[in-house]
Amino acid sequence: MQLRHQTVWSSRALRAMRAALIVLSLAGCAASHNGMAPAQPTATNPSATLASWRDTPTKRAIESFVADVTREGSPSFVPPAQRIAVFDNDGTLWSEQPLYFQFVFMLDQVKAVAPQHPEWKNNPAFKALIAKDYGALANQQKALLQLVAVANSGMTVDEYDRTIGAWLASARHPKFGRPYTDLVYQPQLELLDYLRANGFKTFIVSGGTIEFMRAWAAKAYGIPPEQVIGSSQVVRYEVRNGQPVLVREPKLEFVDDGAGKPVGIYRSIGHKPILAFGNSDGDLQMLQYTAAGPGPHLALLLHHDDAAREFAYDRASKVGKLDKAWDEAVTDGWTVVSMKNDWQTVFPAPQQ
Amino acid sequence: MQLRHQTVWSSRALRAMRAALIVLSLAGCAASHNGMAPAQPTATNPSATLASWRDTPTKRAIESFVADVTREGSPSFVPPAQRIAVFDNDGTLWSEQPLYFQFVFMLDQVKAVAPQHPEWKNNPAFKALIAKDYGALANQQKALLQLVAVANSGMTVDEYDRTIGAWLASARHPKFGRPYTDLVYQPQLELLDYLRANGFKTFIVSGGTIEFMRAWAAKAYGIPPEQVIGSSQVVRYEVRNGQPVLVREPKLEFVDDGAGKPVGIYRSIGHKPILAFGNSDGDLQMLQYTAAGPGPHLALLLHHDDAAREFAYDRASKVGKLDKAWDEAVTDGWTVVSMKNDWQTVFPAPQQ
Repeated sequence: MQLRHQTVWSSRALRAMRAALIVLSLAGCAASHNGMAPAQPTATNPSATLASWRDTPTKRAIESFVADVTREGSPSFVPPAQRIAVFDNDGTLWSEQPLYFQFVFMLDQVKAVAPQHPEWKNNPAFKALIAKDYGALANQQKALLQLVAVANSGMTVDEYDRTIGAWLASARHPKFGRPYTDLVYQPQLELLDYLRANGFKTFIVSGGTIEFMRAWAAKAYGIPPEQVIGSSQVVRYEVRNGQPVLVREPKLEFVDDGAGKPVGIYRSIGHKPILAFGNSDGDLQMLQYTAAGPGPHLALLLHHDDAAREFAYDRASKVGKLDKAWDEAVTDGWTVVSMKNDWQTVFPAPQQ
Repeated sequence: MQLRHQTVWSSRALRAMRAALIVLSLAGCAASHNGMAPAQPTATNPSATLASWRDTPTKRAIESFVADVTREGSPSFVPPAQRIAVFDNDGTLWSEQPLYFQFVFMLDQVKAVAPQHPEWKNNPAFKALIAKDYGALANQQKALLQLVAVANSGMTVDEYDRTIGAWLASARHPKFGRPYTDLVYQPQLELLDYLRANGFKTFIVSGGTIEFMRAWAAKAYGIPPEQVIGSSQVVRYEVRNGQPVLVREPKLEFVDDGAGKPVGIYRSIGHKPILAFGNSDGDLQMLQYTAAGPGPHLALLLHHDDAAREFAYDRASKVGKLDKAWDEAVTDGWTVVSMKNDWQTVFPAPQQ
């Protein structure tokens, strides 16, 4: 269609050039091609900026995309109602090493009730959990979610929220010695603000459970509970002591990971995002789904290549495995963000 | 708690008085007690008004509630992020007689594929459908949703959306001879606008399916797809002819009715509404859940008592049955809205 050829992102030649720029950027030579691309207009809303993003082709690709979809009257213009941006959480908006932070929380929950569940003795997820075999655990997300569903069944959702809140307040990350909620990525906080300042609605679409994320996502990311999509457990309505409550049932309802992510997006959002940001093979289908839109779209992958400031992993790793999505990013010209080269800072400064 | 006693809605005495006013209003004598209550301040945002609402205690109860929760610094103030308003759809935002409009659509869908499903012959919902036994059908919402899930399985969600769109464009209501989407209630359109103008986020929480409502809710109500909560069917992600698609599976996933409504609210919104509006026993638990909040809240029931302009039904009727919720409204001082007495107009003027 004529429209596709008029937009920046749909031209095959430009996509190939962008892929080449990404490779250059990943190789740490962002400055070497400054003369290649004409300066892109910056986005129209100046109230939010990507201050912690280095001035690389990656940053310019984001700014250029936002400028394109917000430029009224242009063929690439996208009305605000359709400016849906979806972000994976673990490893995309905050750290996930050495183990998804929610798993650390779950570990405590499951251990506490293990004596009442002798049937777990031969459960592979339970055995991996007790042995602290993080590699095995990372591959058993569903089985672990099922254990947790059983562990906290009978609790009301409000009681469960208090349990999460208490854990978040006291737990500290083993490497950084900071509360887990401090380990959000500063450049991503700026990107979320920047998108919202330009009329986007920002959502989390994560394999983590909705309760665990909703407990802190509004404060940390400015994303309200109704824009958090995640894995969930069956809850039941009942009137308990004259008070309506929602009670957690010992049954997993939905796993919002891999091919579950586009399904979660359809169920909870109902239209296709135009921007998706992930960091692992668990985000592959969400990125494919977003990138298959007929109009402008931007698919982004965060590459963890920064051992000095965070962790270097992802290709062929156990947590945050990034193989299929990486290959597709290279083939289809998705934007790969290098933590090492594209980000000026990683974490927010500790609060005084 | 001290806070509760300072707010208008938590005082037992005032609730009882309000219940008395409702009864007077329902009896058509709204003018007789004009001197009883002091004039309430109107809401702070003047850009939207309830022009099609008569000047009755019902309208003043709504305006007073909105003024209370938006008055900064007052004990009844509710921050915008918590101003969640949920509305049932069938019989609350648009008509539902003589049969839920979605059932009329489903009837065509199921009939079309019935020859391929001889096993339906003894299915009670299918038999009621063929016999046009609307009373029996209204009590078999789940069974009918299951038939439809089978009828349209294998279709992509985009194909299904086109089917819905085509039906809505051609179907006409048997009594009014207008497109079904014309039969939304004008006073409710104004109420939705009024709430949004006062910082509320408005949601639909309905037993209808998400796809059927999302097809027209944004245009009709200004409610975007991501704020439509409803019954749903399992969908599966797959890459078909190189294109990522979501395919409808022959399985019902969730029935967002009765005790399912607070569950749907929890899953999709994640915090308790402060305003809920329903019209039948299917809304009982949503209203209970909202009314049990610790802060200010408003629970509303639409009473269909207007045979001249719409239909008179609901108490002990088959579609839109209103018995338990009515009793609880009287006991707990929920606001009952009389279509006959509280609404100046019912439907928007036909478009030229």
